[in-house]
Amino acid sequence: MDVETTEPSAGTDLFAAIPILGQMGITLVESGEGRASVSMPAEPNVNHFGVIYAGSLLSAAECLGGVIGFATWPLAGYVPLVKRIEITFLRPALGTVVASACLAEGDAERVRTEALERGKSDFVLEATLTDSSGEVVATTRGVYQLRRM
Amino acid sequence: MDVETTEPSAGTDLFAAIPILGQMGITLVESGEGRASVSMPAEPNVNHFGVIYAGSLLSAAECLGGVIGFATWPLAGYVPLVKRIEITFLRPALGTVVASACLAEGDAERVRTEALERGKSDFVLEATLTDSSGEVVATTRGVYQLRRM
Repeated sequence: MDVETTEPSAGTDLFAAIPILGQMGITLVESGEGRASVSMPAEPNVNHFGVIYAGSLLSAAECLGGVIGFATWPLAGYVPLVKRIEITFLRPALGTVVASACLAEGDAERVRTEALERGKSDFVLEATLTDSSGEVVATTRGVYQLRRM
Repeated sequence: MDVETTEPSAGTDLFAAIPILGQMGITLVESGEGRASVSMPAEPNVNHFGVIYAGSLLSAAECLGGVIGFATWPLAGYVPLVKRIEITFLRPALGTVVASACLAEGDAERVRTEALERGKSDFVLEATLTDSSGEVVATTRGVYQLRRM
């Protein structure tokens, strides 16, 4: 099926399009088809007891769905959005945090096909957040949708 | 049991202690024993398709656990923290969002008693987010802990 695609840079432009992610200091580490990593510094994301705030950790993980969505399905008129997401905090996060996720096997092609046929397709993304000590500090499970707007 | 308490203002000081909440423009609407509401403007929380960013909505809801925790259990040396939280997005959020939550019946006393006896006690908080149209745009369910640090 021949479809119009967006610019390859759409995934990285997500940070320009969502100002609060920039204010958290979240930056792209790398992205490609089906995978992405972002980095987030401790400042200005510290909380009332000196570790990284829960909402910032969630944001670093959540935005991977957008980055991966744009990187994997650069289809004009389609955007990735999140339907629900859960985060589990395992230990206090200190220093710079890296959030990483990759699509499940086969989802790149499945979601593309379904979205083009039906206008939307759901996908699940499980992300891992690691802090400067190398420990996994939190995990997320998000249900996203690639959708024709 | 006679215990040292923190200043009554500790709940509202949460916004000073977590800079990123201030950058999202989140402000306290009201709080009291077992309940709280906060407000958040659309700017600078808009996302890549013009509605309020998922991570900001989560943050507005999540911080209610801290506000309610400090307002309900002003115990010196104890802090509320979040163990896991899930957010479900129901519709696009436009304009100013209000997030509200209240403790389940009996939890104010149960958590206080357990935390003083054992050093920690879990509580669940279900929050509702309403946008400027009056529609519920998202709901959250968080598991928190009041903990002696």
